[in-house]
Amino acid sequence: MSQQNIPYKIYLSENEIPTKWYNLRADMKNKPAPLLNPGTGQPLTAEEMSGIFCEELVKQELDNDTAFFDIPQEIVDFYKMYRPSPLVRAYCLEEKLGTPAKIYYKFEGNNTSGSHKLNSAIAQAYYAKKQGLKGVTTETGAGQWGTALSMACAYLGLDCKVYMVKVSYEQKPFRREVMRTYGASVVPSPSMETEVGRKILAAHPGTTGSLGCAISEAVEVAVTHPGYRYVLGSVLNQVLLHQSIIGLEAKAALDKIGVKPDMIIGCAGGGSNLGGLIAPFMGEKMRGEQDYRIIAVEPASCPSFTRGKFAYDFCDTGMICPLAKMYTLGSGFIPSPNHAGGLRFHGMSTILSQLYHDGLMEARAVEQTAVFEAAELFARCEGILPAPESSHAIKAAIDEAMLCKETGEEKTILFGLTGTGYFDLVAYQKFNDGEMSDYIPTDEDLAAGFAALPKVPGQD
Amino acid sequence: MSQQNIPYKIYLSENEIPTKWYNLRADMKNKPAPLLNPGTGQPLTAEEMSGIFCEELVKQELDNDTAFFDIPQEIVDFYKMYRPSPLVRAYCLEEKLGTPAKIYYKFEGNNTSGSHKLNSAIAQAYYAKKQGLKGVTTETGAGQWGTALSMACAYLGLDCKVYMVKVSYEQKPFRREVMRTYGASVVPSPSMETEVGRKILAAHPGTTGSLGCAISEAVEVAVTHPGYRYVLGSVLNQVLLHQSIIGLEAKAALDKIGVKPDMIIGCAGGGSNLGGLIAPFMGEKMRGEQDYRIIAVEPASCPSFTRGKFAYDFCDTGMICPLAKMYTLGSGFIPSPNHAGGLRFHGMSTILSQLYHDGLMEARAVEQTAVFEAAELFARCEGILPAPESSHAIKAAIDEAMLCKETGEEKTILFGLTGTGYFDLVAYQKFNDGEMSDYIPTDEDLAAGFAALPKVPGQD
Repeated sequence: MSQQNIPYKIYLSENEIPTKWYNLRADMKNKPAPLLNPGTGQPLTAEEMSGIFCEELVKQELDNDTAFFDIPQEIVDFYKMYRPSPLVRAYCLEEKLGTPAKIYYKFEGNNTSGSHKLNSAIAQAYYAKKQGLKGVTTETGAGQWGTALSMACAYLGLDCKVYMVKVSYEQKPFRREVMRTYGASVVPSPSMETEVGRKILAAHPGTTGSLGCAISEAVEVAVTHPGYRYVLGSVLNQVLLHQSIIGLEAKAALDKIGVKPDMIIGCAGGGSNLGGLIAPFMGEKMRGEQDYRIIAVEPASCPSFTRGKFAYDFCDTGMICPLAKMYTLGSGFIPSPNHAGGLRFHGMSTILSQLYHDGLMEARAVEQTAVFEAAELFARCEGILPAPESSHAIKAAIDEAMLCKETGEEKTILFGLTGTGYFDLVAYQKFNDGEMSDYIPTDEDLAAGFAALPKVPGQD
Repeated sequence: MSQQNIPYKIYLSENEIPTKWYNLRADMKNKPAPLLNPGTGQPLTAEEMSGIFCEELVKQELDNDTAFFDIPQEIVDFYKMYRPSPLVRAYCLEEKLGTPAKIYYKFEGNNTSGSHKLNSAIAQAYYAKKQGLKGVTTETGAGQWGTALSMACAYLGLDCKVYMVKVSYEQKPFRREVMRTYGASVVPSPSMETEVGRKILAAHPGTTGSLGCAISEAVEVAVTHPGYRYVLGSVLNQVLLHQSIIGLEAKAALDKIGVKPDMIIGCAGGGSNLGGLIAPFMGEKMRGEQDYRIIAVEPASCPSFTRGKFAYDFCDTGMICPLAKMYTLGSGFIPSPNHAGGLRFHGMSTILSQLYHDGLMEARAVEQTAVFEAAELFARCEGILPAPESSHAIKAAIDEAMLCKETGEEKTILFGLTGTGYFDLVAYQKFNDGEMSDYIPTDEDLAAGFAALPKVPGQD
């Protein structure tokens, strides 16, 4: 192994950190459908949005044309604390699999937040600070986003209020403590602090919460408290813009060693990691410069792409958020509680939804015990304990590498390793004890979610 | 901050990973005292040692003269998965403190084991494998060493049995699960599996265990099971040899940017991190080439250097291990249970003990609430959630930087950030809730430990 020409880790230097984010939408022939005001059914205006989001972020959200946005120097400086992130050649995994495929992964877990979420958290916190706001509100499920945002806010001296899905708040006390250590206030959702929380608790007294419900609470608090705005860790166009740093770095590092991946694989919950990782590659593909297979991997228990509908839907349970046109299982869909980790969101980024709809990418669903098998194999070979979310991409990458073993093809696979699994050990324990099971929603389960899709003019 | 000439992280390239470990002992005028056979009181022979340790490691343990040992290529290849580790300039912390001091830290937490322990774990597992052994046994307290060894054994396909101090086994179930995920078998200590465990349980039925007791069990199992040897994560000369990679890399990176540190600070439990970090600097100091202040930081609740005796003592509670001449609180000393994290060992590396005795380094003890204050400040500025152990070094580095602020001196401080605190959130929670307290043993507490020091010819 010592005579490889390509090193294990391909690092860029600090001055090779991209100074611009890339906006996928500029190269899309079919732009993502606009967000709609749920009251009027009309596209949301910048003015309407600015009550919820920071002004600069509203601009980024609405801009379908500008290909590159300058990254403010202060954000580049923050990125330097943990970026460029390593691009790793998985020699040990390749050897273990006996595959001729060449596997690379872009590792985004090398910061305390433990995931790629920090890339957008610092950007959103920065614009909030710049606008002179006092603080931000958000929701968190598995806790990666909340942790990242707490870190960013601590750094900038912003107040940070996190509504944490109650089941996670109770099952992941350590996640909660990390956020508190970074100075955030963490509230289990649904709470009695908000009108929507009180309403949900009255209707479902024993509920353990959901991401959609926590979103509703965080938005309510942001719009009713002067000096506060709401921030979100996935789904939105602005988030994919910030996360493009992942793909830009990955591409720059691969270009350095003259490697073109045949396929790019990422896990997909709301789409933040996948959209960021594929951005520059998809750009080349859309511009007809280079072809790539692009594969989204989602859990079989929450199959937005593979079994969802492409339709306008609410992003939240409380139905107070704008409507987004996306692949969705319906805003009332709640994944089986047996599902470990994130990727539990009922919808999907509107950008990725459009790209998938237009046949520019593939999607597949995988079951969780197979995901944890892949995770454990990966941990033992490559030394990194992966987050369950990231392990969906590992599973697909291993499957593709094993196909190469059958056919003898030396394909080059790039996948996104979004984060570490330090806070997911309850799930690993279940897996280690043989107590993990799979769950695939029935067609009836899905039909109930679809029945609740909102009526929007022009939508069936 | 963007106009700094020195980057945030100074990375070496993979081919700059040192290919030799440096053996501090070669440059010591007064060599560390030899280990003694507790039965005969005579220096332990290589033959006696080889029933406990692998042959190659026995050679390393006993060699006081060879300055450099080649690192086997297989170990270098493994190191490439997570090394070179970053050397970071703590710009954000400096700015927060308003100090003219320049602070650097060598971060060893960038691997799943979460600490520097992996550097020696892979070496020890490699030699065990090379000798054709089936497996290794060890003990773990806070869990960092056990995790690292489990990873290394998974990689090499070696059986790994970890005796985990019972209180940690119960309070840190996630640590346990990480080890299991890497395929190790983890046993709470004291257990009924060993003679020494049964004896301790009979004498102290309710005991929650101690590191010294877990060592006794692991050694007993190794010497009574063919094909097994015992491995240890600190204290031993071989461990300091392997850990010299930390200091060698740190020095190579600093040399690259033309920086000489004025002082080098490391936390000290058994001495593995401190001994590794300071190795090449202490070498220059001993050879009269360059002067450095070298500072060991230990917890006030387990003050081996600052309040211990320099004497021959057992490394374990069961008193079946060889005797080592070291700064010790007595093998029966058990730190207050209020103490969070590692650094709970009653003794200290014989090498570091001799260096301290000879006036080549300083030591200071710090209290844990002050340590957690420093940890939280560091986390918020630098983004890394530090392990409590590492935070002892942070505390001392901050104190020195604040002294520079008073005097206006632009000193350069290098400290070792040995690992991350993901598994120490119970302690962070206590701190966040204001429920953490300090504990300093009384002179009477210490006297009891000293009274139990073994009778060795020539020792008072």
